[in-house]
Amino acid sequence: MKTQVLIIGGGPSGLMLSRILSQAGISSVILERQSRDHVLSRIRAGVLEQQAVDLLESTGLGTRMQAEGFVHHGIELAWEGHRHRVDFGDRPVMVYGQTEVTKDLYDGSDADAVTILHEVSNIELDLNGPGASFSQGGQRHEITCELIAGCDGYHGVSRRAIPADRIKLFERIYPFGWLGVLSETPPVAEELIYANHPRGFALASMRNAMLSRYYIQVPASEDPADWSDDAFWDELRRRLPAEAAESLVTGPSIEKSAAPLRSFVAEPMQYGPLYLCGDAAHIVPPTGAKGLNLAMSDVQYLAEGIIAAQSGDRSGLEHYSTRALARVWKAVRFSWWFTTTMHRFPDQSDFDQRMQESELAVLSESAAARKVLVENYSGLPL
Amino acid sequence: MKTQVLIIGGGPSGLMLSRILSQAGISSVILERQSRDHVLSRIRAGVLEQQAVDLLESTGLGTRMQAEGFVHHGIELAWEGHRHRVDFGDRPVMVYGQTEVTKDLYDGSDADAVTILHEVSNIELDLNGPGASFSQGGQRHEITCELIAGCDGYHGVSRRAIPADRIKLFERIYPFGWLGVLSETPPVAEELIYANHPRGFALASMRNAMLSRYYIQVPASEDPADWSDDAFWDELRRRLPAEAAESLVTGPSIEKSAAPLRSFVAEPMQYGPLYLCGDAAHIVPPTGAKGLNLAMSDVQYLAEGIIAAQSGDRSGLEHYSTRALARVWKAVRFSWWFTTTMHRFPDQSDFDQRMQESELAVLSESAAARKVLVENYSGLPL
Repeated sequence: MKTQVLIIGGGPSGLMLSRILSQAGISSVILERQSRDHVLSRIRAGVLEQQAVDLLESTGLGTRMQAEGFVHHGIELAWEGHRHRVDFGDRPVMVYGQTEVTKDLYDGSDADAVTILHEVSNIELDLNGPGASFSQGGQRHEITCELIAGCDGYHGVSRRAIPADRIKLFERIYPFGWLGVLSETPPVAEELIYANHPRGFALASMRNAMLSRYYIQVPASEDPADWSDDAFWDELRRRLPAEAAESLVTGPSIEKSAAPLRSFVAEPMQYGPLYLCGDAAHIVPPTGAKGLNLAMSDVQYLAEGIIAAQSGDRSGLEHYSTRALARVWKAVRFSWWFTTTMHRFPDQSDFDQRMQESELAVLSESAAARKVLVENYSGLPL
Repeated sequence: MKTQVLIIGGGPSGLMLSRILSQAGISSVILERQSRDHVLSRIRAGVLEQQAVDLLESTGLGTRMQAEGFVHHGIELAWEGHRHRVDFGDRPVMVYGQTEVTKDLYDGSDADAVTILHEVSNIELDLNGPGASFSQGGQRHEITCELIAGCDGYHGVSRRAIPADRIKLFERIYPFGWLGVLSETPPVAEELIYANHPRGFALASMRNAMLSRYYIQVPASEDPADWSDDAFWDELRRRLPAEAAESLVTGPSIEKSAAPLRSFVAEPMQYGPLYLCGDAAHIVPPTGAKGLNLAMSDVQYLAEGIIAAQSGDRSGLEHYSTRALARVWKAVRFSWWFTTTMHRFPDQSDFDQRMQESELAVLSESAAARKVLVENYSGLPL
């Protein structure tokens, strides 16, 4: 087999890259470990920055998002009896689940007749070829290409194909995780509520008018099976602002999962013919809703580089990592700051807690401080 | 002896309080452990916020400051080969040493015929009387008053007079200190330079055109006697931006001292007839130049409360602590943030360092982020 761009991973990054390349007349093949149904069943992020909205629209896949997504013009912060709405002004975000984005991308790939090989295993990258060998349906296959896009997430093979002495890893493990519940109930509020509470952080989010997404901070090792729906709702109610807790509509969870929180960055994001995108190169805690958005900006940078290289300009590819990392680090910083400001840490001193409260007081009193939050939450420029 | 307001401590807080009260026709007596010469020889902060400038002027003591002080319209941040000037716009600060402020206040107190008792020892507060007993010149004295202002700094007796179960202490000890040198040399730059360097923080500051003040981050336990002038200048040169280091003019130090860095807040700042001001209630690391400025805003709040109480309105006194602490905590937050962003910590990970660099990158790229810094550096509203 032969293609121009071999894409490892059929999640939103790989699918979007394939889509943009296809529209520019560049062939690609996607290798995905899971089945299409499995990829489509993953519950992930739900907030899109304008740049991700623009990208989906510019690739002709924005129709359903515009019809079914929700434009949000602010979020609410709650702490110690205070509630403060941060107005996004002319920088709104789009509430539209990653699951929906992935579905739209798959629908697009069907129309493009993009080659996506599912349930592929034992992928071995060949950075000299370049290309890869892999197993599918009990057979071993080989594929050659001009370049490889590693869109296979934190646990994928792409980043691991880079020699350890040619890549530097940065990591912060947070001493807690999030327990998330999806329920077919009306959201407790029209906008997201981020709550800093003595019992731990809580987030009231949503996917649509009858699909709510709630999270509570839990110890990193928490097993979701230890949480009945009632226990989850009770704990959530304790942490939300009183008026919100009173109006909370509960129901059976249709998904319940726990995830540890981590910040992670690999530098550089390229090595020879291999270019990393999204979670393969960096992980952010979900507090700032940056994960999917960063993946989309990586993909946009990489696609621009690949397309320019077709007409002989390789500078976009050469500077891909530098360009992507400049944006990545700022989003990592924002996610780290927002996480640190909103969560209770096991070793948090009284002084640390006052620093959180003062940070939130400054946000509620300074328009400039809120503008910094909005600039980052709504998405930094490309 | 009898007075209306007994002021413990003859530093800038106590002197300023006495000055304002005197102008309002309220009598006060200041008890100071040290001699006047000793108080006047202390080298401390050098940057005044507009509110402190206004206060000095409104009490008729701004003439020398206006003639000899330097209005600064920005500071420079340096890190990893980057240099970025933060423009203060219409929020300048005044470079005028605490030593000079203290001298102006003493000159004012002479004109006011304020009673300042120097070299007083063994002060014992009586919160029931209220009043105090103390030793001076081998004699024991007693004084009664209407209220007591504790302006005697972190190590003073005032805060300790509050029962331990009626006061809550918040503290963060930083794992480093500052080694400072004063020299009769022209400052290396017209504005202050704050440098985040792999070898540690450095600050190039000044008092006037021929008096420079430089600091370098050192281990908390550092003995200044272990640092020759040459060793200090060499280390400073390594940490300043290259062009600044090249133009650095060195000379013999006329003062060299080391101080640990600490954040500290006592809550509440009042107990019965006792009201704490400045360092007696809170300490900030010197990075944000907030120490003297916070003391001045405390004094202004307390003076307003005392004056209003003369005509029967005690609300200013009753709410003194709440009002002062709201401003204090925000300044403590700013000083903590600026310290954390600019210094190297012994246990700093590569991730932590990237967070510092990203914070500084955001400052250099976001006008809103710079505005937050300026709002805090130039001084929050009273």
